[in-house]
Amino acid sequence: MTQFRLTFLVGLKAGILDPAGQATRNVLQHMEYQVDDVRIGKWIQVIVSAKTKDQALAIGQEMGERILSNPVMEYFEVTVQAYEQ
Amino acid sequence: MTQFRLTFLVGLKAGILDPAGQATRNVLQHMEYQVDDVRIGKWIQVIVSAKTKDQALAIGQEMGERILSNPVMEYFEVTVQAYEQ
Repeated sequence: MTQFRLTFLVGLKAGILDPAGQATRNVLQHMEYQVDDVRIGKWIQVIVSAKTKDQALAIGQEMGERILSNPVMEYFEVTVQAYEQ
Repeated sequence: MTQFRLTFLVGLKAGILDPAGQATRNVLQHMEYQVDDVRIGKWIQVIVSAKTKDQALAIGQEMGERILSNPVMEYFEVTVQAYEQ
């Protein structure tokens, strides 16, 4: 078994309200930054053991669907890299 | 002025406890996933107006340092892309 780093980006689907993003946008605009939209999602890194890179990615896809995202409100993408300690 | 998409990845510095990551690791391990570590950070997307891509990146660097990360506990990286609506 080899260790791999899975990187997940989990975001709210278009049309789902993002109160934290709106609050951050308001702060930035009050500070005179010219911003139009802010969306806040999650960046999740998981170190996983698998036989191959493809297997690690398949495990990541399953984890993302089952646990790391809420498929009703969120989408995610997962990528896999070699893990260097 | 042109619109650009700034993408921030904000993570807890090494050595800073990540309770949400630990809780997620425990859940994954109980489900028989072979995971060793889970770290949870933020993925922030900001649409900003700037004259050039370089200027957008400089604004992003400043925003990251001043507002979007807590420099005591967090690190961040920012990248800039053209914004396609």
